[in-house]
Amino acid sequence: MELGERRISWAARSMPVLTAIGERFAAERPLDGLRISACLHVTAETAVLMGALRAGGATIALAASNPLSTQDDVAEALRGYGIDVHARAGVDRATYYRHIHQALDLGPDLVLDDGCDLVNILHTERVDLLDGVTGGCEETTTGIIRLRQMTAEGALRFPVVAVNDTLTKRMFDNRYGTGQSTLDGVMRATNLMLAGRTVVVAGFGFCGRGVAERAKGLGARVVVTEIDPVKALDATLQGYEVRPMAEAAVLGDLFITVTGNRDVITGEHLVLMRDGAVLANAGHFDVEIDVRALGELAVEVHTGVRPNTDEYVLADGRRILLLAEGRLVNLTAAEGHPAAVMDMSFSAQALAVAWLARERAGLAPGVYDVPEGIDAEVARLKLAATGIAIDYLTPEQESYLHSWRVGS
Amino acid sequence: MELGERRISWAARSMPVLTAIGERFAAERPLDGLRISACLHVTAETAVLMGALRAGGATIALAASNPLSTQDDVAEALRGYGIDVHARAGVDRATYYRHIHQALDLGPDLVLDDGCDLVNILHTERVDLLDGVTGGCEETTTGIIRLRQMTAEGALRFPVVAVNDTLTKRMFDNRYGTGQSTLDGVMRATNLMLAGRTVVVAGFGFCGRGVAERAKGLGARVVVTEIDPVKALDATLQGYEVRPMAEAAVLGDLFITVTGNRDVITGEHLVLMRDGAVLANAGHFDVEIDVRALGELAVEVHTGVRPNTDEYVLADGRRILLLAEGRLVNLTAAEGHPAAVMDMSFSAQALAVAWLARERAGLAPGVYDVPEGIDAEVARLKLAATGIAIDYLTPEQESYLHSWRVGS
Amino acid sequence: MELGERRISWAARSMPVLTAIGERFAAERPLDGLRISACLHVTAETAVLMGALRAGGATIALAASNPLSTQDDVAEALRGYGIDVHARAGVDRATYYRHIHQALDLGPDLVLDDGCDLVNILHTERVDLLDGVTGGCEETTTGIIRLRQMTAEGALRFPVVAVNDTLTKRMFDNRYGTGQSTLDGVMRATNLMLAGRTVVVAGFGFCGRGVAERAKGLGARVVVTEIDPVKALDATLQGYEVRPMAEAAVLGDLFITVTGNRDVITGEHLVLMRDGAVLANAGHFDVEIDVRALGELAVEVHTGVRPNTDEYVLADGRRILLLAEGRLVNLTAAEGHPAAVMDMSFSAQALAVAWLARERAGLAPGVYDVPEGIDAEVARLKLAATGIAIDYLTPEQESYLHSWRVGS
Amino acid sequence: MELGERRISWAARSMPVLTAIGERFAAERPLDGLRISACLHVTAETAVLMGALRAGGATIALAASNPLSTQDDVAEALRGYGIDVHARAGVDRATYYRHIHQALDLGPDLVLDDGCDLVNILHTERVDLLDGVTGGCEETTTGIIRLRQMTAEGALRFPVVAVNDTLTKRMFDNRYGTGQSTLDGVMRATNLMLAGRTVVVAGFGFCGRGVAERAKGLGARVVVTEIDPVKALDATLQGYEVRPMAEAAVLGDLFITVTGNRDVITGEHLVLMRDGAVLANAGHFDVEIDVRALGELAVEVHTGVRPNTDEYVLADGRRILLLAEGRLVNLTAAEGHPAAVMDMSFSAQALAVAWLARERAGLAPGVYDVPEGIDAEVARLKLAATGIAIDYLTPEQESYLHSWRVGS
Repeated sequence: MELGERRISWAARSMPVLTAIGERFAAERPLDGLRISACLHVTAETAVLMGALRAGGATIALAASNPLSTQDDVAEALRGYGIDVHARAGVDRATYYRHIHQALDLGPDLVLDDGCDLVNILHTERVDLLDGVTGGCEETTTGIIRLRQMTAEGALRFPVVAVNDTLTKRMFDNRYGTGQSTLDGVMRATNLMLAGRTVVVAGFGFCGRGVAERAKGLGARVVVTEIDPVKALDATLQGYEVRPMAEAAVLGDLFITVTGNRDVITGEHLVLMRDGAVLANAGHFDVEIDVRALGELAVEVHTGVRPNTDEYVLADGRRILLLAEGRLVNLTAAEGHPAAVMDMSFSAQALAVAWLARERAGLAPGVYDVPEGIDAEVARLKLAATGIAIDYLTPEQESYLHSWRVGS
Repeated sequence: MELGERRISWAARSMPVLTAIGERFAAERPLDGLRISACLHVTAETAVLMGALRAGGATIALAASNPLSTQDDVAEALRGYGIDVHARAGVDRATYYRHIHQALDLGPDLVLDDGCDLVNILHTERVDLLDGVTGGCEETTTGIIRLRQMTAEGALRFPVVAVNDTLTKRMFDNRYGTGQSTLDGVMRATNLMLAGRTVVVAGFGFCGRGVAERAKGLGARVVVTEIDPVKALDATLQGYEVRPMAEAAVLGDLFITVTGNRDVITGEHLVLMRDGAVLANAGHFDVEIDVRALGELAVEVHTGVRPNTDEYVLADGRRILLLAEGRLVNLTAAEGHPAAVMDMSFSAQALAVAWLARERAGLAPGVYDVPEGIDAEVARLKLAATGIAIDYLTPEQESYLHSWRVGS
Repeated sequence: MELGERRISWAARSMPVLTAIGERFAAERPLDGLRISACLHVTAETAVLMGALRAGGATIALAASNPLSTQDDVAEALRGYGIDVHARAGVDRATYYRHIHQALDLGPDLVLDDGCDLVNILHTERVDLLDGVTGGCEETTTGIIRLRQMTAEGALRFPVVAVNDTLTKRMFDNRYGTGQSTLDGVMRATNLMLAGRTVVVAGFGFCGRGVAERAKGLGARVVVTEIDPVKALDATLQGYEVRPMAEAAVLGDLFITVTGNRDVITGEHLVLMRDGAVLANAGHFDVEIDVRALGELAVEVHTGVRPNTDEYVLADGRRILLLAEGRLVNLTAAEGHPAAVMDMSFSAQALAVAWLARERAGLAPGVYDVPEGIDAEVARLKLAATGIAIDYLTPEQESYLHSWRVGS
Repeated sequence: MELGERRISWAARSMPVLTAIGERFAAERPLDGLRISACLHVTAETAVLMGALRAGGATIALAASNPLSTQDDVAEALRGYGIDVHARAGVDRATYYRHIHQALDLGPDLVLDDGCDLVNILHTERVDLLDGVTGGCEETTTGIIRLRQMTAEGALRFPVVAVNDTLTKRMFDNRYGTGQSTLDGVMRATNLMLAGRTVVVAGFGFCGRGVAERAKGLGARVVVTEIDPVKALDATLQGYEVRPMAEAAVLGDLFITVTGNRDVITGEHLVLMRDGAVLANAGHFDVEIDVRALGELAVEVHTGVRPNTDEYVLADGRRILLLAEGRLVNLTAAEGHPAAVMDMSFSAQALAVAWLARERAGLAPGVYDVPEGIDAEVARLKLAATGIAIDYLTPEQESYLHSWRVGS
């Protein structure tokens, strides 16, 4: 087996849900005769998705959504499977766009996008193809924002499913995925023993909850900071200590920001911290810790004292350790999403494509949430893949629930 | 101090949020000149709510929503505070309705209801008063269902806020309140040591989560049953074992149903259980455990072997213990909602009344959710009462969040 | 079935280990021909122990170790089983001692004691019987202290096993039993919702660990106080906050003392506490909370505001709630040891009696720990009764462990 | 600063307890005039220990206990501090022994050993020096076993403290250190998301407890296997599922052996496992998983599918992943003991040396446990370094405890 095939096979083993969907697609052929133009990261996990769609009957042309992430051996393997791949690692901007055009040359019925570039080109440079396009999926939050603006301006010409936002994916990704990988990143970077340490978690959204649970699970005393009183109250009810950052700054051995906001740890907090305090960010952008303020407070900086760890020495000798330069510590110092997470999101995407194939005639242009049943279906397949059985409602129970809900 | 006053004072000490709202109302007088007819349980906690509304400037007439729960000494104390109370413990049906009429005689601007009886009478027997009524609150789920039907039929004549359904109340009541009180009820009834036992929790909604967390927190191995694959998956991700009831039945030392559905534990499960298995229900109605099937399987029944505990002896000698006859174990064997829970719901209600007073002119008839800000306000006051400070957004952070959300 | 028999049968169902030992004794008759004089609490649990010893072949005479705890119906039932019982609830001191003499009239080979009274009488007033006595068991710590003094003075005439002090009993009793029953007592007394509260646990011995685990498991933030640095360090490594009481006093909503020492919460701490603070003791004696200091600080005391709850109002209006007058909250407000705990200690006692019967010829007078194998045997039977199988060493593994331990 | 100095300085920052001891030694000079010959791993952490002893007044000669672990730059830095170092990375066997002889040439009063080689040479080849040696410390379990044999044979000529075996070190190392680093190693090797997985922990000693706690804390369902019924029972009381390995083998996604015994996972278990099962060992020797049996069952082996991960494909296609070839996963795939652990053990060692210096005149030859007070002292310094204050006994409390213990 070539390297590309082995990579795909390795990914597939951690993607039992998508594999099961592929098998069902092979039997039911829900995409028979459909042409799909896709613009996605060309990785082993994507290859498993392509395999499932193809098994469902689709003809596929694939371009890379980011030339940096393209795995050339995977691209080669996909070509061997009969997928029309236009991607090569490290290509320049012009080639990147030419690849997207080549993927569109297929004349798609459906499109898959990751960042809205393909959809954008469709609506600007390839309007001739628009009449044929009856639906699409978009992977990213950023892409969805652009699509909503297009909808608001009346520009979007077909229905698009926001496949990023499913309950199962959120559970896997935000709470449990980010929770574990963030602490994993901290341990790889610092080899810090967490038992007995005070960990300050800034933000108690889904990600923050996950980080707090894992820190507590590793034996730390966890202090939470929040700006939302409902989330703050919930944190206290789960047994966490809640404080403003100005108080938490004095207590923490490790600080993890995961708010989605900027300036969560600023100079006024940095000057309060203990010698040896460790700062890590697990929020999307590197604006949560004020790295510039840290640099200005420091009289000396030692980069790389450990992998992904820089040491800032303050004027009074206290040392503060910044992980991953304030960027996502779980991606930089650990390995980001495990394949198990991609299994959930790509499975939702495969099912959304089949749903689009079935329902597209009746859908107005606009952005659609993933239909509710898809979450349940992905969860059901995930449980089955794990060998876990659950109960089913009897007709009497169905009827009882219904009658109760309408109020008899 | 008379007994009624002492009861109210004792309740008030566990209701710091409502007390704080009462103080604010006294200063701001948001209900100045308003007449309120209320039909609520006449208890010490309700008295604290009445006090807050009165401090806000309202004139109040109060009838009992259930003659069984009326605390006569509290009613007496309320009269001493200048509230017009029409309630007496144990009155007959005719008197009950006459009391509601008497409360309506005030000619209300706003109404507070608990089960929709007062609103119903308004719309059928006291339509003369309807023109004056500009808004209402309803406490119960059942009442809300009736109000929605009225809305659907075009019958409802004013806006009503569904005050039962707030996030803070749900956290306090469903997850943490029911969680603790259910295990509390089991311990009072059985004196069972939970460490090392296998507890089967049927249902992983908010209440089920709470019950599972508390059982785990008391050292039990927890097995979850579910019919919803997404909830089932979430349970596994939180480390619980998930199984169908037919498998769990063999394993459990203690079973707690909290699904909201019927026939969760039936004869087919009962025959599989271990000698000494304990059955408890924490779902709203006593239909979750099939008590009749248990009775039919039993060759002998010993009632009251412990408080709220009946023993059913099966033909082969196995003994099954049923708590509280399959009714809500947390209400029957423990004490149900602590005042801290009522503090959250009545605080939301007081703020909803003030919101109605302010906004009612612009509201069409119909059922309204509690406005979002009220949850945040109740949580904020609760944190303040507990002495917990949180952070506030800077203008730069507000602007950053905003820009991100709209996508620039 | 008479009440006494039903009580014994109810206790027996929660004592599967002792029941299994009784069955084995019936087959193996390890006590054949032995006469046992016992002085124990005459309760249903003791009756199950008597049954096991009798099944093993012993002839038994039983007196009550405390007339207050005697259950007359159980005594009657035991007489029906052929046990010679000398006990009646509420008898006077003279009768109490006469009963012990009557139990000794049997001319025992072995004695069982609970507090050392029977052994004391043997060594002072019934020395004629001493030659026949070849061993004994003592239940209590206090009794063991007296026996050690007797040993030190050369007075003790036969070997006595300290049956109170087994590992399995300690796990069941101290850590898990006291842990749960203490929180159970607090909930019954106060109906306090623990989620979100700060619980201060004074002392981190076995009991303190159990209490801290259960408080954490119920959603509380737990602060530990200690005087032993090793235990304090261990508490931090388990994620608890450790502070001196003078700091913790300011933070706690609920204080639980479980140190085994006096003056753990004194006037200097009481004056620092928040309004509404709750004080409970789970240590053996009621000296841990300085109740007198509390009384002196109070300007008003309301006893019984809830069951087992007294309210002390300080001069500035703050209210402090004292549970169970500072006595063991788990015994006073909850129900103390569940039968599952007695199952462990009485099983160890039954096995210790059989061990004594076998080994007594070779044992010098003195106090003996429960032989190591007995703990393992009780644990093994407990696992079997719960239906839990474990692994066994292969001969190769035995030999590997041995070779490693001696160092080859 | 040279690299060696920087390494020492980096280690010192994570060793606050040893640093504090060094400062106290500098003031109190407890080792004034003493000559110490040491045979230890020449690493940055050891250098901090050497610094503390030197500050206490000792003259030191140091040889390496293992040429593979010698950090030459650290050795160089130590020479610069006036320590007589005989060590170089990668030397041959003859040079290794010559280095030990050179360290002994100092004519030591005390010796520090790590594996008993230096002590062995003293008693065989350098008996001339024996009269001068008045005490020693030994780091390893293996060394202690050899010393006990020497004692048994009457060969050992001076008292030796077994410094490996302190309570604080055991907490830091076994339970919390091994617990975290084992899961850390698994995550680095596999990037497996642990939430929702079933983790089988074989062995519930201190290490096993730590591993189980961390696995549970990361969201896994934990199944424990044991051969000791008391430990097995304790595991159930902590909420874990206990099963024999033959049952657990079917359930596990991840298996971690930590028993100290051989053949814990054998061919009969391997054939039962699920596709994708992961095997890791955290016990001292690589005999717990039967790697040879795995190799014989496999029809294909892919080494290095992930770092430290080999894949074994069974005849029916199932794949089993073996981490670190069955060797200690926490050392191989993660980084073993963090400096915080070495801080505890080297601090105990420094205090043991001071104790020996003071008490050696009165000590007979033999192996000694670390004196009890040293554990408390290390814990006290650790708490102080972390900024945690605890309570102190008042004279009344001291006296109460004493009186109670002797029984008045």
